Amino acid sequence: MAKVLSSRKEDYAQWYNDLVIKAGLAENSAVRGCMVIKPYGYAIWEKMQSVLDRMFKDTGHSNAYFPLFIPKSFLSREADHVEGFAKECAVVTHYRLKNSPSGKGIEVDETARLEEELIIRPTSETIIWNTYKNWIQSYRDLPLLINQWANVVRWEMRTRLFLRTTEFLWQEGHTAHATKDEAMEETMKILDIYAKFAKNWMAMPVIQGTKTENERFAGAVETYSIEALMQDGKALQSGTSHFLGQNFAKAFDVTFLNREGKLEYVWATSWGVSTRLMGALIMAHSDDKGLILPPRLAPIQVAIVPIYKKAGELEMISAKVEEITRKLTANGITVKYDDRDTHKPGWKFAEYELKGVPVRLAIGPRDLEKGTIELARRDTLEKNVYPVEGIENRIKELLDEIQETIYRKALDFREANTFRADSYNEFKEKVETKGGFILAHWDGTSETEQKISNETRATIRCIPLESEKEEGKCMVTGKPSSQRVIFAKAY
Amino acid sequence: MAKVLSSRKEDYAQWYNDLVIKAGLAENSAVRGCMVIKPYGYAIWEKMQSVLDRMFKDTGHSNAYFPLFIPKSFLSREADHVEGFAKECAVVTHYRLKNSPSGKGIEVDETARLEEELIIRPTSETIIWNTYKNWIQSYRDLPLLINQWANVVRWEMRTRLFLRTTEFLWQEGHTAHATKDEAMEETMKILDIYAKFAKNWMAMPVIQGTKTENERFAGAVETYSIEALMQDGKALQSGTSHFLGQNFAKAFDVTFLNREGKLEYVWATSWGVSTRLMGALIMAHSDDKGLILPPRLAPIQVAIVPIYKKAGELEMISAKVEEITRKLTANGITVKYDDRDTHKPGWKFAEYELKGVPVRLAIGPRDLEKGTIELARRDTLEKNVYPVEGIENRIKELLDEIQETIYRKALDFREANTFRADSYNEFKEKVETKGGFILAHWDGTSETEQKISNETRATIRCIPLESEKEEGKCMVTGKPSSQRVIFAKAY
Repeated sequence: MAKVLSSRKEDYAQWYNDLVIKAGLAENSAVRGCMVIKPYGYAIWEKMQSVLDRMFKDTGHSNAYFPLFIPKSFLSREADHVEGFAKECAVVTHYRLKNSPSGKGIEVDETARLEEELIIRPTSETIIWNTYKNWIQSYRDLPLLINQWANVVRWEMRTRLFLRTTEFLWQEGHTAHATKDEAMEETMKILDIYAKFAKNWMAMPVIQGTKTENERFAGAVETYSIEALMQDGKALQSGTSHFLGQNFAKAFDVTFLNREGKLEYVWATSWGVSTRLMGALIMAHSDDKGLILPPRLAPIQVAIVPIYKKAGELEMISAKVEEITRKLTANGITVKYDDRDTHKPGWKFAEYELKGVPVRLAIGPRDLEKGTIELARRDTLEKNVYPVEGIENRIKELLDEIQETIYRKALDFREANTFRADSYNEFKEKVETKGGFILAHWDGTSETEQKISNETRATIRCIPLESEKEEGKCMVTGKPSSQRVIFAKAY
Repeated sequence: MAKVLSSRKEDYAQWYNDLVIKAGLAENSAVRGCMVIKPYGYAIWEKMQSVLDRMFKDTGHSNAYFPLFIPKSFLSREADHVEGFAKECAVVTHYRLKNSPSGKGIEVDETARLEEELIIRPTSETIIWNTYKNWIQSYRDLPLLINQWANVVRWEMRTRLFLRTTEFLWQEGHTAHATKDEAMEETMKILDIYAKFAKNWMAMPVIQGTKTENERFAGAVETYSIEALMQDGKALQSGTSHFLGQNFAKAFDVTFLNREGKLEYVWATSWGVSTRLMGALIMAHSDDKGLILPPRLAPIQVAIVPIYKKAGELEMISAKVEEITRKLTANGITVKYDDRDTHKPGWKFAEYELKGVPVRLAIGPRDLEKGTIELARRDTLEKNVYPVEGIENRIKELLDEIQETIYRKALDFREANTFRADSYNEFKEKVETKGGFILAHWDGTSETEQKISNETRATIRCIPLESEKEEGKCMVTGKPSSQRVIFAKAY
């Protein structure tokens, strides 16, 4: 069988791109930097959405929907925010087209120019805080815990499917609180939800930490993130939770009467994960044969392929498969029976490997006689023959086992690729030869961070929340440092 | 208690707007014509989405996602399509902002002008068929049954919350087929899904029919719709399903090799329902006290209000309510216990009436003694005292009963407001004095339809699919007609 993908060793970036396209997850569209998310890719995203949505609702959040458009003037209200986003905004200037005078095609109708240009939302803090102003008068109106699932646009110059696209899908939570403590608690609660989701559903270990000032969200007082390590040794920021302080409340004049009858500015958070998670999921586990999906997010958990020569055989196999499918489905397992006569079994096996279906069953006339079935697991590529009787129980266990195994594997990989560097030379050598997460001391200044980044292309991914305090000296300046921070090259 | 809403009789349009805002469903945003869908309104929309999404998937459709942007030139490919949409398009011309030279605010960076302008999708046929071109080679690739949930933008001059907004949310299905018959079958299958959804979930009777040429979707060969009658006697088109023939396949050159090895153009359908359904739902059932929601779409099905004077009483009531809630929840019923001490019971009763919660329970110390509970149903405003023992069974039945009752009521209303007119004078008088659906003969020409519309503002809503054939003469021209069509003033 012909090789479908570039190998990771040969060309990791090409492998990733091949995989996204060949597995039918997404493709580039006719519009620069915008992708089409294909049904198989979208089915994974829907699973992610549904789990996250449940987690948000279980912690008291409601969904709502705010406009796609943001008046240009709103963006300027918060100084850091406009600085961060103005350079990558899609701008709507007109609201009508007309026939070209030449009679060929259409053109913009210059008489239909907007008085104030509209920005396609790159994120919705400004339009939402402008709205919250009318919703919040007293402490009784707080907290306001709202999330929205939406598309956003950031005009990126270099794009990659899922990882960085001009338009992407995401959720953005925007909450309002009466006190700083409550807003901080919310910020950390969401960070924890993101980390749990990554671990328990994506089977992807992440490190929770604080971003440095350089990497902070434009308009935030503090940004927290979850960071994952990909197989090429590069880090991928997979979700962020921002403590916004009173910045947006001040920019949009949102105050409330507290319990003591005094007027105060409202405290805010915002947080989001996007279709970028798809990129993380793909890169965290997959191999040169294709996707490896955690069973809990796989659109198809079990694929069944009949092996037969004659139509009569297929009929008998199909009857048995129906029985098996019924039992699997009753156990909450998603099954696809692929009885297409247009493709050979070998082709189908490769196809389900490529698509990362966790378990593949094959059954032929001999199996019917012997009461057996062949089971292949995608993660280890192991094949075994089992009695068909009770196979649903074996598969149920196995799906949990696979979920656990690929998490373990990713965790082992991360541990094997996490290094300590105690001098700048050692650091540079590690960045150059090993990649991965590098724990080192840093003096806490943006200047030093910038110097390191300029010289090595490694950046501080985060100041990890859970790590032992350790007195040390900045590897560059020798100034004191109280804990190691995590450096890596990053997506 | 002060009147919250205008009455329907006084000012129907004002009543509707008051209701949408006061019940917390939606409000106008800072962006002209764009709405904010508030959490309570969005919760209803989410329920609609989830039911429809299940219906689409059960009939073999998958979700996917296509870009928000459409290159301007794509729009011109199908002649009718561009004619229908060019005049209401939001156009992106630039991709960057910069600081104003004055130092105040930001402005469009003229050096960042797009070579080809991008249109915000008003509907996605063009970008999708441009994509399908690469997905379809042979009959084996067909049918392609894809849906997307998305936002779209049509630059409307006069907007009304939910009914007509510049940006709205919707689903748009786009399918590709090997034969005309199969595409027609799909068109009708979806129309039927929409009608079933309206009837069984929204409790809203609708008429399925064919649109006349005047009202056809721009680019369709045939458009079918479901039409509902609102309480002011105006019709509301609630969903459309289009048979597109080979129009888009030809415009985007999408061909396939058929089973005989011959190249053919692909057959297409598209279909959609939008947040406009929210407007239909609100207007179909509600009264001067507020919303009336069908239980199957109500975010809260049962609200429970404690009646107490002392804290000790509340404690005992809450213990009992917990017990009741557990039983209701076990029956799949959504419950809200409102024990806020910031509002009086009377205020809460009015609030749940306004929000259309189907069943409201009230329980006080006397009830605890007697083992009773007060139950009020929103649709009839009836109140009764029941034994608390087994109340979950009574409520379960009652929710079905309410669903059925409000459907019946809407159907009775429609029947009482459907008239036949046999002369143009009679027709004009009915339109003027009664409103409603008017069944009349029409000669099948656009000219006559236009004349009637100009003179009466009533339009042909549809040529109903289920109606007896009846030979007659056009009420305007006297030319022959083989069946009555449905006229009405419309939203």
